[in-house]
Amino acid sequence: MNYKTIFSTLGRVILLEAALLLLPAGVSLIYGEACISAFVVTALIAAAVGGALCLLCRSDKRNLSIRDSFAIVSLSWIGISLMGALPFVISGEIPRYIDAFFETVSGFTTTGASILNNVESMSHGLLFWRSFTHWLGGMGVLVFIMAIMNKAPDRSINILRAEMPGHTVDKFTPKSKNAAKTLYYIYIAMTAAEFVLLVCGGMPLFDSVVHSLGTAGTGGFGIKGDSIASYSPYLQWVITVFMLLFGVSFNIYYLLLLRRWKNAVSSNELWCYLGIFAAALVIVTVNIYPMYHSVSESVRLSAFQVSSILTTTGFATADFNLWPQLSKGVLLMLMFVGGCMGSTAGGFKISRLTAMFQIARNEIRHSISPRAVSAVRLNGRTLSAQEEKGLLSYLVLYLAVLVGTFLLISFEPLGFETNFSAAVSCVNNIGPGFSLVGPAANYSVYSDFSKVVLSIAMLMGRLEIYPLLSLLVPQIWAKARR
Amino acid sequence: MNYKTIFSTLGRVILLEAALLLLPAGVSLIYGEACISAFVVTALIAAAVGGALCLLCRSDKRNLSIRDSFAIVSLSWIGISLMGALPFVISGEIPRYIDAFFETVSGFTTTGASILNNVESMSHGLLFWRSFTHWLGGMGVLVFIMAIMNKAPDRSINILRAEMPGHTVDKFTPKSKNAAKTLYYIYIAMTAAEFVLLVCGGMPLFDSVVHSLGTAGTGGFGIKGDSIASYSPYLQWVITVFMLLFGVSFNIYYLLLLRRWKNAVSSNELWCYLGIFAAALVIVTVNIYPMYHSVSESVRLSAFQVSSILTTTGFATADFNLWPQLSKGVLLMLMFVGGCMGSTAGGFKISRLTAMFQIARNEIRHSISPRAVSAVRLNGRTLSAQEEKGLLSYLVLYLAVLVGTFLLISFEPLGFETNFSAAVSCVNNIGPGFSLVGPAANYSVYSDFSKVVLSIAMLMGRLEIYPLLSLLVPQIWAKARR
Repeated sequence: MNYKTIFSTLGRVILLEAALLLLPAGVSLIYGEACISAFVVTALIAAAVGGALCLLCRSDKRNLSIRDSFAIVSLSWIGISLMGALPFVISGEIPRYIDAFFETVSGFTTTGASILNNVESMSHGLLFWRSFTHWLGGMGVLVFIMAIMNKAPDRSINILRAEMPGHTVDKFTPKSKNAAKTLYYIYIAMTAAEFVLLVCGGMPLFDSVVHSLGTAGTGGFGIKGDSIASYSPYLQWVITVFMLLFGVSFNIYYLLLLRRWKNAVSSNELWCYLGIFAAALVIVTVNIYPMYHSVSESVRLSAFQVSSILTTTGFATADFNLWPQLSKGVLLMLMFVGGCMGSTAGGFKISRLTAMFQIARNEIRHSISPRAVSAVRLNGRTLSAQEEKGLLSYLVLYLAVLVGTFLLISFEPLGFETNFSAAVSCVNNIGPGFSLVGPAANYSVYSDFSKVVLSIAMLMGRLEIYPLLSLLVPQIWAKARR
Repeated sequence: MNYKTIFSTLGRVILLEAALLLLPAGVSLIYGEACISAFVVTALIAAAVGGALCLLCRSDKRNLSIRDSFAIVSLSWIGISLMGALPFVISGEIPRYIDAFFETVSGFTTTGASILNNVESMSHGLLFWRSFTHWLGGMGVLVFIMAIMNKAPDRSINILRAEMPGHTVDKFTPKSKNAAKTLYYIYIAMTAAEFVLLVCGGMPLFDSVVHSLGTAGTGGFGIKGDSIASYSPYLQWVITVFMLLFGVSFNIYYLLLLRRWKNAVSSNELWCYLGIFAAALVIVTVNIYPMYHSVSESVRLSAFQVSSILTTTGFATADFNLWPQLSKGVLLMLMFVGGCMGSTAGGFKISRLTAMFQIARNEIRHSISPRAVSAVRLNGRTLSAQEEKGLLSYLVLYLAVLVGTFLLISFEPLGFETNFSAAVSCVNNIGPGFSLVGPAANYSVYSDFSKVVLSIAMLMGRLEIYPLLSLLVPQIWAKARR
């Protein structure tokens, strides 16, 4: 292992966090809030720790192996979460460190699961920091560093792959030096567009900033007890559309920028994504109509909730926990689906799903006529046998993480619906679940042990298992070395 | 398609059912019950239908394709279920045909899910018929025909594969002419052994017959409202041990018969099965101990319930729906595991599970050092790439069936825990679920639509999806033909 480079990169990430902490400090300054000191103190601690790591471990010129990249990504995410939790504790607004850690992991992983019983009493600075972690985590912290440092991609491409959602299939197209930069340009432009549309619709400035950041990262932290429910229908529609947009692969926006229209619309993942959205929209709308007696309201609530869950954002405009069983069933299934590969959305991802169904269909054909050979095509490309295997192995690992999380939090006597939906929601980085962790409730009902388990589950989900697993299971390294 | 052979085989299966219906008729005769006429009438109808099919369609000498075998197996199972439901309706003990059909499918598929609110009021003849369907379905109806007809295996091996649980991996070893016969000899001997041990323990004769048949098929229909709870601890232990024994691959018993001890114990599936049993036993025992304050009682209840769910039998000695959340979580996870390949148990099967974890482990190794190549070994054999793919495709189909079943029964306002556990329980052929379909309740709460959905789910689970799917999705045939 290239320990020097690993720890010097970790140092840089923490230094970056120190710098970024000045943004919420600025927000606190504007609102004249006491929590400014918490940000400054944390920034100083982060600068000291990050600086020390950079000074003690100088990165050398050796290439980074996949192992090294996995270690860098895992340690960086754990590091920024440990550090990012400090402002909550120092300011006293979340007194217990474990709660603050859960909240921060939930932020960076764009889950949006909260332990706050009264979010409206929080200071603006901390609310901004919460939502800003969504924005950073959505596209990736290391991708951000690469974007500002202009690093040569041949050395850091493994890091990009390990951090970007959906590294297993459909590698991100722009492999050029500017890949990370291009990504962030698109990301910033889209976030800004949403912000402008929200402000134009009459949403207060601060609310618009926070919700734009939360939508962009497909995070879901709100600043009201009822999430988005109290905003006007126009604002809810704007957020609905942008949630859907941020669930689309950034690859497609890149292709649109290059005016390669034909390539952009040839993505079968995109059509699948829109098809699933439309199907769920119809079912849920018809199903909830008797509760609201208004077509426009049913469509709006249904479209908002379906896109919120499908893109794993987790905002809410209604307490869908009170919806009929069928709608809850559809939403639960959407939790597993997730957004497109290469978007900021979590979940299992549409690409994997479409590819898997193709594999299954081929297998049925093969079982009937053994000479039949069919390929799996994804976004205009045929998957290799190795990629097919990787995909299905990911499914196994994903299910194993889900089952493990569910069993470990089953120590809590909160009922099956709560525990199961909490596990599904955290592994898929959604946020709300059903019953006691529904959109009108929060995760404060869980014990410290379960909060740690769910934090690990959120990290597993966001980093797509491999990087973190390799840290947790050292003998995998050992055997692989032989 | 070889329609002539398909329908003539279907005719033979129904003729066989006509003959087998004389057994419950005999039981009715012994107890002097009125339902005897229901069995005789059904037997006559079955004889007429079966005879007509045999006369109209004469099987020719052409080989059977996989397609033909799939069709034979699917149609036979649907046919015997449609026919086997008649005695319940004719006798008036289950007045509605749809309920009787659900009960019969549940019997043949060895699920053991019941719609009966008061099982103790049923006549002996019908109780025997219910349990006898378990016994027939456990090893397979077509396997039974092959056993008595001594058919050449080269023609019917595909049928055997399509009907035996676990056809994808680890093909049954005795491919000789007597494969089906050997299987049934072992099956009958083990059922008889359990019967003798139950009678010796003081269980009434009729109860012993019925419970032996139900254990052997890993079915789970009981004849008391509280399943096995009112019997003595000795009897509960006998059933526990035999449930476990019937969850072991019959391959292993065959090897033991041949005195190939070394081959028998080299099965990693067996050790995995026992390991999962032991682990679940410890967790559940410790978890329920505070409820019972007795080590022996906790161990007994836990061992019984764990083996009942693991082997997908579904008998109960306690209302595990009232157990703590962790135990319920463990039982829910065991529902997905199932018994060994080539046993009468349902579920996903241990072999598939162990192979899948090996594939995932290999994939992690591969993702770290791309040159690492590891094979998947199952019971002393290395799986081919095609087999690995088939395995993982089965996982995809299995999950799709599970999700489809869950969504279709989500129309019922019975709550998430009930609907989810009902879907899991039926797809895996277990029987009881949680909450409103828990061991102290039954499936009569469901609508007719859901009963049909759950019946199809049970058939899907028992026949391991492929045969039935190919009937339901005709375009798969069409495309495969090209």
